[in-house]
Amino acid sequence: WHDRQQVNGEATLAHIEHWLEKEGWLANFDRVAAGSTDTEGRRGREFSDSEIYKYLEAVAWEIGRVGDSVRSAELETRFRAVVDRVAAAQDADGYLNTRFGHAGQQPRWSELEWGHELYCLGHLFQAAVARERTAPGADDGLLGIARRAADLIVDAFGADGIQSFCGHPEVEVGLAELGRVTGDRSYLELSALFVERRGHQTLKDIEFGRAYFQDDIPVRDATVLRGHAVRANYLAAGAVDIAVENSDAGLVDALKKQWQRTVDRRTYVTGGQGSHHQDEAFGEDWELPSDRAYSETCAGIASIMFSWRLLLEGNDARYADLIERTLFNVVATSPSAAGTAFFYANTLHQRTPGEAGSPDEISPRALSSVRAPWFEVSCCPPNVARTFASLAAYVATVDGSGLQLHQFAPATINTVLGDGRRVAVEVETDYPRSGRVVVRVVEAPADEMSLSLRVPSWAAGATLLVGGSSREVAPGYATETRVFSAGDVIELNLPMRARFTRPDSRIDAIRGSVAVERGPEVFALESSGMEGLGSNEEEFSRIEIDDRVQPAETGRVGEADAGARLTVSLRVVPESTEGWPYAPELRAAEDASEDADEDAATFTAELLPYHSWGNRGTSTMRIWLPTVGA
Amino acid sequence: WHDRQQVNGEATLAHIEHWLEKEGWLANFDRVAAGSTDTEGRRGREFSDSEIYKYLEAVAWEIGRVGDSVRSAELETRFRAVVDRVAAAQDADGYLNTRFGHAGQQPRWSELEWGHELYCLGHLFQAAVARERTAPGADDGLLGIARRAADLIVDAFGADGIQSFCGHPEVEVGLAELGRVTGDRSYLELSALFVERRGHQTLKDIEFGRAYFQDDIPVRDATVLRGHAVRANYLAAGAVDIAVENSDAGLVDALKKQWQRTVDRRTYVTGGQGSHHQDEAFGEDWELPSDRAYSETCAGIASIMFSWRLLLEGNDARYADLIERTLFNVVATSPSAAGTAFFYANTLHQRTPGEAGSPDEISPRALSSVRAPWFEVSCCPPNVARTFASLAAYVATVDGSGLQLHQFAPATINTVLGDGRRVAVEVETDYPRSGRVVVRVVEAPADEMSLSLRVPSWAAGATLLVGGSSREVAPGYATETRVFSAGDVIELNLPMRARFTRPDSRIDAIRGSVAVERGPEVFALESSGMEGLGSNEEEFSRIEIDDRVQPAETGRVGEADAGARLTVSLRVVPESTEGWPYAPELRAAEDASEDADEDAATFTAELLPYHSWGNRGTSTMRIWLPTVGA
Repeated sequence: WHDRQQVNGEATLAHIEHWLEKEGWLANFDRVAAGSTDTEGRRGREFSDSEIYKYLEAVAWEIGRVGDSVRSAELETRFRAVVDRVAAAQDADGYLNTRFGHAGQQPRWSELEWGHELYCLGHLFQAAVARERTAPGADDGLLGIARRAADLIVDAFGADGIQSFCGHPEVEVGLAELGRVTGDRSYLELSALFVERRGHQTLKDIEFGRAYFQDDIPVRDATVLRGHAVRANYLAAGAVDIAVENSDAGLVDALKKQWQRTVDRRTYVTGGQGSHHQDEAFGEDWELPSDRAYSETCAGIASIMFSWRLLLEGNDARYADLIERTLFNVVATSPSAAGTAFFYANTLHQRTPGEAGSPDEISPRALSSVRAPWFEVSCCPPNVARTFASLAAYVATVDGSGLQLHQFAPATINTVLGDGRRVAVEVETDYPRSGRVVVRVVEAPADEMSLSLRVPSWAAGATLLVGGSSREVAPGYATETRVFSAGDVIELNLPMRARFTRPDSRIDAIRGSVAVERGPEVFALESSGMEGLGSNEEEFSRIEIDDRVQPAETGRVGEADAGARLTVSLRVVPESTEGWPYAPELRAAEDASEDADEDAATFTAELLPYHSWGNRGTSTMRIWLPTVGA
Repeated sequence: WHDRQQVNGEATLAHIEHWLEKEGWLANFDRVAAGSTDTEGRRGREFSDSEIYKYLEAVAWEIGRVGDSVRSAELETRFRAVVDRVAAAQDADGYLNTRFGHAGQQPRWSELEWGHELYCLGHLFQAAVARERTAPGADDGLLGIARRAADLIVDAFGADGIQSFCGHPEVEVGLAELGRVTGDRSYLELSALFVERRGHQTLKDIEFGRAYFQDDIPVRDATVLRGHAVRANYLAAGAVDIAVENSDAGLVDALKKQWQRTVDRRTYVTGGQGSHHQDEAFGEDWELPSDRAYSETCAGIASIMFSWRLLLEGNDARYADLIERTLFNVVATSPSAAGTAFFYANTLHQRTPGEAGSPDEISPRALSSVRAPWFEVSCCPPNVARTFASLAAYVATVDGSGLQLHQFAPATINTVLGDGRRVAVEVETDYPRSGRVVVRVVEAPADEMSLSLRVPSWAAGATLLVGGSSREVAPGYATETRVFSAGDVIELNLPMRARFTRPDSRIDAIRGSVAVERGPEVFALESSGMEGLGSNEEEFSRIEIDDRVQPAETGRVGEADAGARLTVSLRVVPESTEGWPYAPELRAAEDASEDADEDAATFTAELLPYHSWGNRGTSTMRIWLPTVGA
């Protein structure tokens, strides 16, 4: 992750600022400040303000992350310059939006279904919170901008205000965070109102139905996430915050059940969510096609936000498991190795090579099957940036009794337990290259405390080595509770052997197929790395895997490849006669595998981590591989 | 088909006229005639005029179909009343459209990508042609309206005119038919210009790319249908007409290849085409998900138009095979038994029961999983109506040497061979109840001629009984060439035993599954007909079929059920533990079928013809059934 964070901090942030300027989305603030508010002259979609706020959030986290004072000062300068431009566009009463509410524009709050005004403010609040976390009391004015805007909407949408809410959830989680950071309960109360108001068919009906923006069923009555996948997860994240703040056990329980059913039935093996291109929405239970998987990058990020809040609530490893899976196989998949092009959607099966776009050209569509530098709807790049910049926040938590390590990365953790005792540990690991995670105690309280290390659900047979003796630890958390001294070492060893993964029979789209995983990484077969058999599109469509032969690790081949290679045994199904593809006995059930062995030669090919696909030119790709004879 | 035609002629046509009035789409013509042309007051989408023309086409065919003079006179009155209202809205120079080209509206031809002006005229031309075919020389004025409009666009878009074309193909086929009926070559020439101009990136780029409206690749260079499935097929149909008129063998050959690859790789087992909801488009090769199958009713109709023209060109049985498959399993599926509600999309797998709508309420979306009385975009109901009313046209063809029978229905055929000789036959059959088709010669020329009967591709083992001796006939055409006398009988016997159908391994979405077919009908499992095991949604999702047990015919149970019942052997997979649905060894490959036999009791259930599903309340349904242990 360190390399990814470096690329993010250097290449990606500059790339995003470049595009925000180039597309005029930053200049929209200058126009409002100058009083030029006609809609025609404004550029970008109605939610483009939010990309500036996400960028600010990313820079705020990045300033907190880098130790280097030169780099930090440079980021600080850029950050303040943007904040100043935002500040200049804020109205005297706190209203802030470049698309609504001024001369020549639609009035404030006049289009809650699609206007995204509150959505944009939610991202503003998250940016201000990130800034306050990494530079408490900074005099740049961002927190004040956020508070003035928040105070305005408390007035406008409070108990006696407009009895509605934003079509795109986000302000809920933003208000909750802002309320925590400032201690202002009115923000938390408004967030709770927004959560509770939803689901009563208040917004206008739309083509996709009200489930699209979760106005079909109240949050506490729903049983599963549905509709637009980003909206659903942002809303759920905000609802957890509110439920925790209000000690609302019923709401927490409802959200946990929604999370569980969504993970059990509506989530891809990558952790990706949202099956539909049309409405960017969840499909029904078990509707998880690989070849039209939408799995929007932002939905993965939103899902992490939801899981993270449930993890904080209850320290259950399954939430950390899904965060890890989604980080490695959705969020890490989106940006190119150079950090300047992004997948908007993350398909699990690319049938034909996409068309390479230009690095200078905006992509009109999320349909693109190659990474693009920027999009007309460009939510994903800054969302990736803020997530990478804030990764450290997901590594560990503390409570009164000790420290919990959820994600594995080299780290130095200096913190204070819930009861005020100081603790410091160092984590050494090259995970996921190996499964060895060494935790060295640097400072420990004089009395007993617990160190808990997550054992991922796939890591059956993991062992914990403490003081020379090793014991097997089950998935969940491996906890060592005792009096620790500086220099004590705990070593977790996770089994990293590559494994075949089989789908539940109800997921029709991938019946008779296997995926290959190793540790937290899902692997993929990509045509651009293949030579000879299977490398062309026609043959690629006829590949089967012999799952009697276990995948073998062939070693890493350098940084550029960003991960391991696994060798598997494949064959190309002999070309069947062209013609109507549904035949009475296209293959007789009994003879299929015998015929197969006779007709088709098996060969070996390398799989690579899914997150690194598409970095070697356009290609076909698939995660799920049909098994021989299935 | 006779019952369907009756329902269509009586219930469906009245239903459509009712909705055209209720929604104000007919009144749009009155408004233009009265000079009230402001856009705000107009109702319906920009292409709503076309629904009136399709309705007129349906009525014209229906007048030709019914023998009853009372009924015919009633239809004639309704027909003329609508024609008069259309006539009143035509401009002096021939321009005819209620949405463009008048005071307060966008100018003529100003929005070719989405305006549908030429598309609407294409349907007007087809209506006029149908009228001329069934009532030659009628004095209602429709042909004159069409000709004036056609003359106008010959001027506007001819060789020296606007070098562009309509985003939605249809005028091509309309002009070609009008040219044939009137003998006016200028219409054929303009149609040819429209066909040739397409594919050179003339229209503006759109979110879905120019393939959406087939402006990506010239017709003669394309290798497969792509983009919006209705547009692709309408264009192809018009292009065949033009190719045949111009004896353009290269273009015919290109279209045949496109047809073949589309059928081999982009067509559902129902004959349905178009996988995507988002852009109503074809997917890539092998991208044919059952559970989000769009398979628009109109795309099925358009595919029949394309196939029919290729059949006329070359008398190849595969075109008639696809027409039959699509008629039985797409077009017949759309309308309810009562003929007053319609599927817009025809999914092959319904996971959750849809919500029953009101018979008085317009459906805002094609997403609906139940039949709806009318849609905001209501292309399908009148398209179904014109197709049912004109079914007789698809039954047989003649050439210089004889008569070819392509579709099987009770019929009396009185016609003239290509060389002028008279022939008359009677067809008796209850197909597809049985596979017996009896052709009795009523009148025959004195010298040799051929009678050809199509043997469908699934009908291996079919026999032809002539003069007491029976011979096996291969799929294609069974032809008897000799001197026939009145009273001679030829009897075709098609094997109607139900059969399992297996998909090509490249169609990932249905790997490890079988469909059940009988004759031309695809069968489906529907929850609403099941009792006990498998009838609830959760169990339905875990059904597998034991394909070692052949489906058994259980007899017909009355007209209301519209077809046979087949009994198959099913089991419900025991409920697996809930949780993450991708596990290392969710089922061990070796043990799966043994476990299955132990744990799950098999039971029998009835399948019904797919086209009759959804007529017994909301339900879950699937065509492709996973096989035990797959």
